[in-house]
Amino acid sequence: MNWRVEVVVSLKKSILDPQGRTVERSLHSLGHGNSSAVRVGKHIELELSGEQAAVEAQAHQIAREVLTNPVVEDYHLTLFATTGSEAGR
Amino acid sequence: MNWRVEVVVSLKKSILDPQGRTVERSLHSLGHGNSSAVRVGKHIELELSGEQAAVEAQAHQIAREVLTNPVVEDYHLTLFATTGSEAGR
Repeated sequence: MNWRVEVVVSLKKSILDPQGRTVERSLHSLGHGNSSAVRVGKHIELELSGEQAAVEAQAHQIAREVLTNPVVEDYHLTLFATTGSEAGR
Repeated sequence: MNWRVEVVVSLKKSILDPQGRTVERSLHSLGHGNSSAVRVGKHIELELSGEQAAVEAQAHQIAREVLTNPVVEDYHLTLFATTGSEAGR
């Protein structure tokens, strides 16, 4: 079975986000004065093949150990079942 | 009214993703041989205040003109209503 995994990696709320601040300043200077709290993170998509329980555990392991710096970042993970053809294999 | 906007910016399917390829190679060398099709994009969150229709149009304008390079990237946008306190203003 094939699975599509979507991982959103974002800086922890307590960590300053200079890139987000820069985007926010740009938005204000472009006339979007009603914007605030801009945070920039990563969005990673990948395909995994295998049984659901194993793939779920593996996806969390990948997110935790490869995609996220746990000192400053949090992640959020979603798993979608795909057909063999949609997964492109 | 306050709104939380989540924008996912990803490279178009037809565009090569060297960062994704690098992550994929790392995953394979770490024993995740069942992984494929890794794509790395951006996840941007921001708050906007205003009426729904106006904010929706504004969010798309920001995504299109500020957050995305339309030549090589696509975006996907979601709008959530938040209470005044949750929006932190």
